[in-house]
Amino acid sequence: MGQVISITPEIDKTSRVPVYQQLFTYMKKQIESGVISENDRLPSIRQLAAYLLISKNTVEMVYQQLLAEGYIHSKPRSGLFVLPVERLPVPGHTAVAGAPPTREAQAPDKCTEAWIDFEYGDVELAHFPVKQWKRCLMDALDDLTNDVYGYGDRQGHAGLRTEIASYLYQSRGVLCGPEQIFLSAGTQQSISLLCQLLPLSPQVAMEEPGYHGVRVVLANHGREVMPIPLEHDGVSVDLLQASKARTIYVTPSHQFPIGTVMSVQKRVQLLQWAANNDGYILEDDYDSEFRYQGQPIPALKAMDTGDRVIYLGTFSKSFLPGARLSYFLLPQSLAHSFRTVMQAYSGSVSPTLQVAVYHFMEKGYFEGHVRKMRRLYQLRHKTLIRAIQEHLGNRVDIIGQKSGIHLLLNVYNRSSAELIELAARQGVKVYTPKIHWMDPEACPDSYILLGFASLSEEMIREGILRLGASWFPAQG
Amino acid sequence: MGQVISITPEIDKTSRVPVYQQLFTYMKKQIESGVISENDRLPSIRQLAAYLLISKNTVEMVYQQLLAEGYIHSKPRSGLFVLPVERLPVPGHTAVAGAPPTREAQAPDKCTEAWIDFEYGDVELAHFPVKQWKRCLMDALDDLTNDVYGYGDRQGHAGLRTEIASYLYQSRGVLCGPEQIFLSAGTQQSISLLCQLLPLSPQVAMEEPGYHGVRVVLANHGREVMPIPLEHDGVSVDLLQASKARTIYVTPSHQFPIGTVMSVQKRVQLLQWAANNDGYILEDDYDSEFRYQGQPIPALKAMDTGDRVIYLGTFSKSFLPGARLSYFLLPQSLAHSFRTVMQAYSGSVSPTLQVAVYHFMEKGYFEGHVRKMRRLYQLRHKTLIRAIQEHLGNRVDIIGQKSGIHLLLNVYNRSSAELIELAARQGVKVYTPKIHWMDPEACPDSYILLGFASLSEEMIREGILRLGASWFPAQG
Repeated sequence: MGQVISITPEIDKTSRVPVYQQLFTYMKKQIESGVISENDRLPSIRQLAAYLLISKNTVEMVYQQLLAEGYIHSKPRSGLFVLPVERLPVPGHTAVAGAPPTREAQAPDKCTEAWIDFEYGDVELAHFPVKQWKRCLMDALDDLTNDVYGYGDRQGHAGLRTEIASYLYQSRGVLCGPEQIFLSAGTQQSISLLCQLLPLSPQVAMEEPGYHGVRVVLANHGREVMPIPLEHDGVSVDLLQASKARTIYVTPSHQFPIGTVMSVQKRVQLLQWAANNDGYILEDDYDSEFRYQGQPIPALKAMDTGDRVIYLGTFSKSFLPGARLSYFLLPQSLAHSFRTVMQAYSGSVSPTLQVAVYHFMEKGYFEGHVRKMRRLYQLRHKTLIRAIQEHLGNRVDIIGQKSGIHLLLNVYNRSSAELIELAARQGVKVYTPKIHWMDPEACPDSYILLGFASLSEEMIREGILRLGASWFPAQG
Repeated sequence: MGQVISITPEIDKTSRVPVYQQLFTYMKKQIESGVISENDRLPSIRQLAAYLLISKNTVEMVYQQLLAEGYIHSKPRSGLFVLPVERLPVPGHTAVAGAPPTREAQAPDKCTEAWIDFEYGDVELAHFPVKQWKRCLMDALDDLTNDVYGYGDRQGHAGLRTEIASYLYQSRGVLCGPEQIFLSAGTQQSISLLCQLLPLSPQVAMEEPGYHGVRVVLANHGREVMPIPLEHDGVSVDLLQASKARTIYVTPSHQFPIGTVMSVQKRVQLLQWAANNDGYILEDDYDSEFRYQGQPIPALKAMDTGDRVIYLGTFSKSFLPGARLSYFLLPQSLAHSFRTVMQAYSGSVSPTLQVAVYHFMEKGYFEGHVRKMRRLYQLRHKTLIRAIQEHLGNRVDIIGQKSGIHLLLNVYNRSSAELIELAARQGVKVYTPKIHWMDPEACPDSYILLGFASLSEEMIREGILRLGASWFPAQG
């Protein structure tokens, strides 16, 4: 195993460039140029912080970002190591090199074999902790009060908000109090409430492509949605700057649907843009629980010293879509007045379910469940990538393969309509991500969106095998 | 008991005035003028329909409206009877004659006695069928499918929508299919979705006063709210006509907060206004389950042959605020396109709770629960009226005493601030309804809003006794 390397950047604490950005840029360059090489071990956070006379928080943030962007990896009980050069992240899409399909796929008989549905959004139910959840619901219902049976606290159950605040600190590096958290019946409902009750600017920017479900809600609240193109490491802040928008909706941890991670530089630029323009950033952290390489990336909100980020979270991916439980976290500066204007609103999440989820978190079930699902989805994700390499080989690109519960395929020179139709003949449902482009024509027609969370490894293998057989029947 | 009277109106089927309005007007005049007198029994629906050669539906609607407006009453197994003249409805407020308080009330010690809170909105929990509800929830959770645990049908669980449609037919006279029903997480959420997804006019009229919670949501969706004054039998259709509004939100069964029932003439005029102006009527039927005199009034929607009424219902008053379960019913002409634009939206009501409520209705528990609560609230209502008569006597008016789970007091020549303060000193919380006036200055300052659903008869008596002691200490 490699030696502990020494890191000696020139940190200028008087510079306008934040210290963590200076350190991050330095280390990234050292790795890319090979000065710090494969399998070198990084000094511990404590060591480097003491050596550079900077805070441990700063070093931790830099390390987490390096992990997030795939420059280093963590070995349990050993430390952090630099990844081999050929595995370093490259800008843009990652081409998957792989052997062509090795067996002639059989066309399955649609009448006798089950459909395999790669729809995005569903989660695995077979591993859901039904007993624990039932127990939590029953415990909630044993408390015959208005906190459970009535309208409840319009902001959300105080205990649950405290659990969420603690979860956000531990998992996402976000420091906040329960009084900043507001519950809602889904991310769309969060966006709707923000549009109704905050003075959000009339123009709202969104990554292009970006989550259609939010774009529609913004438009239906009279906001003009400004599409801002993605660059390889996140949204173009230059083009954002040139737009009239003073609010932007982004997915920094895992761009939807492309799957990129927003670079730390972009994060800093975005925060500066907001500070300079009295703007707000809506950060949707929809599936950050599911990262399979390195540790979780801290949320953009964790860097938000200027109170410019409104953080959006949900239990729909990590726990239970059926609870219809999401939340948003307002900066202190907005939270108080929001509570005031919210007085005229009833809550939209069942207090019974809120109390049940509170019990589920407080007993540690939630943490255990997320860990279990992360392992499960990681295996499925690995199986999916392998199956694609084996059966679709070098005739496709995989886009956004690092995390989450979906990825994109670019099937060279084919149209999604044709691909969907051919797949259907083999009993496989696949989808075009076109709807997530504000200008659907701009979506490469050869893109296919694959969600895989609710499919077993066996179904994933079978599904991709069938796709190979249907899309490339002559070869193999 | 009185004789069966004969009714011989001249019905003109060629007139522009609908047959039921002709019949209703005729009968009302006959009763008011004493031609049909106290305790006369009305002919059965079948008899009168056959005699006048009109449909049974028409007669039924007229009878229900007469019941609703308090001209007749129903005796089980005997039929419908005309009420004594002194109990006939009079326009405007109903003064309560009663003896002055007969005992000198003791000032309770706030430190040792519990507060008595007349807040509107809460419902009785002590009689909630916890066991049945738990069983329904557990049954729902035993079905480990996306219908229960996933996002579910965005329009709402099909079985539950079918149950609601059947309930609306049986209880409210509304004929509709489950495909016209859309679930939402509360009436405010219903209004929000309608504003977002329907081309509702930029100006929306509301009764003045009217439910503040809806007015705020309309305004927060960019609608200009036009307050239309109430007349003794409902909103002024003349002033509505003169306004720019092409949509109106009304509470015909039980005006909120005043408590009047919209007359059949007003209903007809309102429907004609909508038909002539390509307008829509949002009918909020929030507490129609709780009528204590006569049978339930049919909904305005039941008369809506022109597809102009959007009906809003909720389970928050009749069942469980904690389920956050409401719904709206669209005319056939709107339902299809609404489903299309709704494709981009996830549902906001937990599918788990939807399935549980489905079981609760399908097993007949809901009907039984509503019956039980109606009896319970009726007793509390009666107790409240008696206690007011006894302890507040002729120094107050009761406004809107016929139904529902709230009423208004007009305390002659006193200010609500003073009344609230004095009540608090005796450990009683009462509220001003001012917020429900778009122009709060227009709310008579002497009005107090009393909700009573969650208070036992004993607490109601004690609460009113304390109000008497605090408001009128020198007398007694």
